[in-house]
Amino acid sequence: MSVFTPVSESELTGWLKRYAVGELVRLEPIAAGIENTNYFVDTTQGRFVLTLFERLSAADLPFYLDFMSHLARHGIPAPAPLADLSNTLLSTLNGKPAALVTRLPGRSLEHPDADACASLGALLARMHLAARSFPGYAENPRGQRWWARAAVAVRPFLDAPRSTELDAELAFHATQRFPDLPRAAVHADLFRDNALFEGDRISGVIDFYFAGVDCLMYDVAVCANDWCLRDPKTDARFDDARLAAFLAAYAAVRQPGPEELAAWAGMLRAAALRFWLSRLYDLYLPRPGMLVHAHDPEHFRRLLALRAAPGGAPWPVS
Amino acid sequence: MSVFTPVSESELTGWLKRYAVGELVRLEPIAAGIENTNYFVDTTQGRFVLTLFERLSAADLPFYLDFMSHLARHGIPAPAPLADLSNTLLSTLNGKPAALVTRLPGRSLEHPDADACASLGALLARMHLAARSFPGYAENPRGQRWWARAAVAVRPFLDAPRSTELDAELAFHATQRFPDLPRAAVHADLFRDNALFEGDRISGVIDFYFAGVDCLMYDVAVCANDWCLRDPKTDARFDDARLAAFLAAYAAVRQPGPEELAAWAGMLRAAALRFWLSRLYDLYLPRPGMLVHAHDPEHFRRLLALRAAPGGAPWPVS
Repeated sequence: MSVFTPVSESELTGWLKRYAVGELVRLEPIAAGIENTNYFVDTTQGRFVLTLFERLSAADLPFYLDFMSHLARHGIPAPAPLADLSNTLLSTLNGKPAALVTRLPGRSLEHPDADACASLGALLARMHLAARSFPGYAENPRGQRWWARAAVAVRPFLDAPRSTELDAELAFHATQRFPDLPRAAVHADLFRDNALFEGDRISGVIDFYFAGVDCLMYDVAVCANDWCLRDPKTDARFDDARLAAFLAAYAAVRQPGPEELAAWAGMLRAAALRFWLSRLYDLYLPRPGMLVHAHDPEHFRRLLALRAAPGGAPWPVS
Repeated sequence: MSVFTPVSESELTGWLKRYAVGELVRLEPIAAGIENTNYFVDTTQGRFVLTLFERLSAADLPFYLDFMSHLARHGIPAPAPLADLSNTLLSTLNGKPAALVTRLPGRSLEHPDADACASLGALLARMHLAARSFPGYAENPRGQRWWARAAVAVRPFLDAPRSTELDAELAFHATQRFPDLPRAAVHADLFRDNALFEGDRISGVIDFYFAGVDCLMYDVAVCANDWCLRDPKTDARFDDARLAAFLAAYAAVRQPGPEELAAWAGMLRAAALRFWLSRLYDLYLPRPGMLVHAHDPEHFRRLLALRAAPGGAPWPVS
């Protein structure tokens, strides 16, 4: 359970006076999440999520909060940060940077079908269109610069074959630059557990705290590598029907250009490498207070090998 | 039925491509409303209201849209205008200024009880607190300057007693200036039909197109003169229990200062005069295309006489 910084009802009641959201009705810690302290907060007016930020600094947070606010203003079901009576989205509670955001309905799907993948594709494309007018900038916090640092940190823990594999992959990406591909602030971590569904409709996209400016196609690749696998834990090959449904729905809203399609295979590899590296990092160099079991990095190593193989990265949409 | 400017499904489907709100599922004209053309618009993403503005000019609209957006950002259940892909809230459709806003759930109450009046009081106070940080400015479009113009326009239609009554009331208000009372952008028309309830909770406050900067207590008075009457059509005397519930709930969130309480009687008279004048105006000088029957002005004349009488404007909250 991930409450690193406890908040009592009386502390919250006092803090909520900074906002115009009504009186506290219910406060409930949220067990999921490994980064921040989260609570469900019900008031006489509505349902919210309180986040106390444990990793990100107050200086970094306006990018994320403004991005979520921008998307919500465009009709994307992102959590909308609440402004306080001084008209700011970021506050402080119990010594931590804190924000109150709208609580979105719905549940995540462990095994999305082709319809759900199509819903994701359409929504992702709309997010990308909406994000194009967002003026904020932050580098992708798990982009190439981070890969280089992470690789140095984890290499001592790797056996020779894995070390060689990592070096080869980094060498490949060092040749890949896409200065002309469309970019915007992207979620960059839109795994199945970060999308909420009500029926076929995506009712929420959550956990924007790995967002950054990157190629739109990179964000597409992150999703494909999680949503469209034959089995999300044991078989990293693409399920052709779900991949096709996801990409066709995306392309119906925003058709990628030829240079984006040419970069697709590299994007899938980049998206695989990013999560292989972060899972290696979390396994071998866990941060203090990290209370959950690290995910197995091997899944993403296998996935990366599949994507890097000839024919491993199809774009099955005409 | 108030569709002054028809919109077809194919016109709307094309127009919605400017937004990131998904594909059109359903388009339904809204019969209520005498000012603008309104449609319910359901998309694959959510439920919205489309408004084509028939009275207000594009130059005036940013104040209203920004104010609604500001309130929604603060957790007030106001319709949130959607930004289009160029990141603006105001658009054009079929030659009219147009906006797409979130559709709020709930139903208005014809006969609110004391609990509903208390919900209104608390919400109104929260709106006022949130509005204090809104930087936009527009004069109350039905404020003292409008009263003077409206009085000139309707006086030829009044009999001698009513003309005398109007002149006396205008003379009274000419002596009333409240330069030191707290002001903000206020709704200024929050009648029962502009609040939506789900159970005891106000789930929506709608129709902000008479908003302007004015004394907060004027906004309180507008509500009291509609929500807290013994009978909203036939008996303009206050229902003591509902008035007390409304004002106590307001004061629990934002306690008016002594100078605001001293001004309360004058505020109730101002709020009565504004609606007497506008109903006279709509009765005698209807705008072309105004398709609904004008409300009877006499209700507000009687209400005004009651408020102006000694003891007619109590503040029953200690």
